[in-house]
Amino acid sequence: MPRIALDAMGGDYAPAATVAGALLALAELPADASLQMVGKEDVLVAELERQGHASVLGNGRIEIVGATQVIEMNDKPSVAAKGKRDSSMVVGLRLQTEGRSDAFVSAGNTGAQMAASVFVLRLHEGLSRPAISTLLPTGRGVPLVMLDSGANVDCSPEELVQFARLGAVYAEDILRRANPAVGLLSVGEEPEKGNLAVKEAHRLLAQSGLNFIGNVEGRDLPRGACARGDLDVVVCDGFTGNVILKFYEAVAPMIFGLLAQHGAPRSAVDAVKHAFDYAQYGGAPLLGVKGISIICHGQSSAEAIKNAIKVAALAIDRGMAAHIGRSVRSAPQEARP
Amino acid sequence: MPRIALDAMGGDYAPAATVAGALLALAELPADASLQMVGKEDVLVAELERQGHASVLGNGRIEIVGATQVIEMNDKPSVAAKGKRDSSMVVGLRLQTEGRSDAFVSAGNTGAQMAASVFVLRLHEGLSRPAISTLLPTGRGVPLVMLDSGANVDCSPEELVQFARLGAVYAEDILRRANPAVGLLSVGEEPEKGNLAVKEAHRLLAQSGLNFIGNVEGRDLPRGACARGDLDVVVCDGFTGNVILKFYEAVAPMIFGLLAQHGAPRSAVDAVKHAFDYAQYGGAPLLGVKGISIICHGQSSAEAIKNAIKVAALAIDRGMAAHIGRSVRSAPQEARP
Repeated sequence: MPRIALDAMGGDYAPAATVAGALLALAELPADASLQMVGKEDVLVAELERQGHASVLGNGRIEIVGATQVIEMNDKPSVAAKGKRDSSMVVGLRLQTEGRSDAFVSAGNTGAQMAASVFVLRLHEGLSRPAISTLLPTGRGVPLVMLDSGANVDCSPEELVQFARLGAVYAEDILRRANPAVGLLSVGEEPEKGNLAVKEAHRLLAQSGLNFIGNVEGRDLPRGACARGDLDVVVCDGFTGNVILKFYEAVAPMIFGLLAQHGAPRSAVDAVKHAFDYAQYGGAPLLGVKGISIICHGQSSAEAIKNAIKVAALAIDRGMAAHIGRSVRSAPQEARP
Repeated sequence: MPRIALDAMGGDYAPAATVAGALLALAELPADASLQMVGKEDVLVAELERQGHASVLGNGRIEIVGATQVIEMNDKPSVAAKGKRDSSMVVGLRLQTEGRSDAFVSAGNTGAQMAASVFVLRLHEGLSRPAISTLLPTGRGVPLVMLDSGANVDCSPEELVQFARLGAVYAEDILRRANPAVGLLSVGEEPEKGNLAVKEAHRLLAQSGLNFIGNVEGRDLPRGACARGDLDVVVCDGFTGNVILKFYEAVAPMIFGLLAQHGAPRSAVDAVKHAFDYAQYGGAPLLGVKGISIICHGQSSAEAIKNAIKVAALAIDRGMAAHIGRSVRSAPQEARP
């Protein structure tokens, strides 16, 4: 009976997109799943009425959990996470530690969601930082897990190894990849290529017990494969990952725009565009916390919110948080900072 | 009377592509320009004959400069640069210090070209490292200078500021951008966003006297512009730059492949493809050395070699090496490591 809490106040288009996304998700989730919309009660009731769905509150599958505060996009993450105790974000996360919910989804302030998730849910023992994992579209039709994509701008070699472990569990549980192949993003294939942190991480990954296939380069990401085979997970620091992610999000629309200018037919462009639509992948799990916290793009549409809720349901169904805990506990000592 | 030396033995398709590229360039360069093809004499004469152009050696605009050794792609850069004194790369660079040539172009081992360029030409006083500057295609139709794109994987804040100065001169001299706008690649617009080196570089750039427009993000690169205006130069460490460059080179062909599968007409795709053809931009100058050394992609075609030779001719015409020297000498002390 998966129970998923949604930060109904979070995101650029909340509460319209969050409420609509919740309603879309309810129609697609298993019948025993339920949703908690966390936020200002009067606002959410009014939004449900506006969308003509006030009656869903009586069906037992969706409830409103009151929270009087909202963390704004420009709030300072750590201050807001600790200071706004009655915000939709903190209240929504706390439902998990109170045993009232199994997952949390938000399109609000990403930094605050990270800080609040660590503060409320806590990190698994042995980890020093959480990581944001993102799915990158690839030419082979299935996505690639990239992490960290922005939680940690300066990373130690040991943290890069932790990310590899977290990403491997995500690829197994959510993408159903058996024995996922993990690559380390660098500037050349050879183990001696890379910056100081990457070179040391390569050495640690080679003895990590993971299915480590060595260094991969920028050119391997769009293909989702390198010379040594298909890739399931690629590990990098959050600075590089964030730059790549934002670059990827912008380059495809730029190319589609140029194509339209040159008279390419809409049907062909639209078919390819779909492969680059981040909304289809839903949210990005914040990995490493004892629980489930799914981070959505601030500009999430109702469709994106729906898909993020479905990712949360998958993560619950497959026991991802516990699986990560086991993986981290069984890690060899050298991989711990 | 610009004189340009070409490493006729360097690159995956040498000497066929280098000789053909030299012949193409001769036809487009001003009549007073001359070329030096550096390499094994017998090999180059045979290649000219094979291409039916042996007679050009008599026209006074092209000569063969003998070099008995070749630096291979898998040679260790610093060892080869210092050990192979009679290689086409070292001999070709030495022509500049001997006053016999004004520029050098190579598609050979990039690491060795960097090492040999620093070894033979020397760095301008006040610089600690050279940088590779690359032109990125953008949606606004004119390219963006990105540096460093691979020479320096670990960079100090002071080195990032040096790259900014070098890139600004390149944008002025080669791209004819007046008062070029320089952005610093980071994970958010605000000065406090970024890794440790980037945050400190931001502070130094703000007082550098350059037209610094602040942090830019991955999403700004394909547009060649950020919220604060058009971008001419973007500065990053060589790890991030190399990953972005290789990613960019691979993502466009991947999208074009998907489009072809979905039946987009060739004419529209080809028109856009051209905008992403790196061959049109020629080589990437190695900036910071006292002279001109243009780095080409290992897989350079004759067309790419021709365009790199034309970039060399532009750099000579506009006195880029001397301009860089003046810019570095006039830099405030705080920007020196």
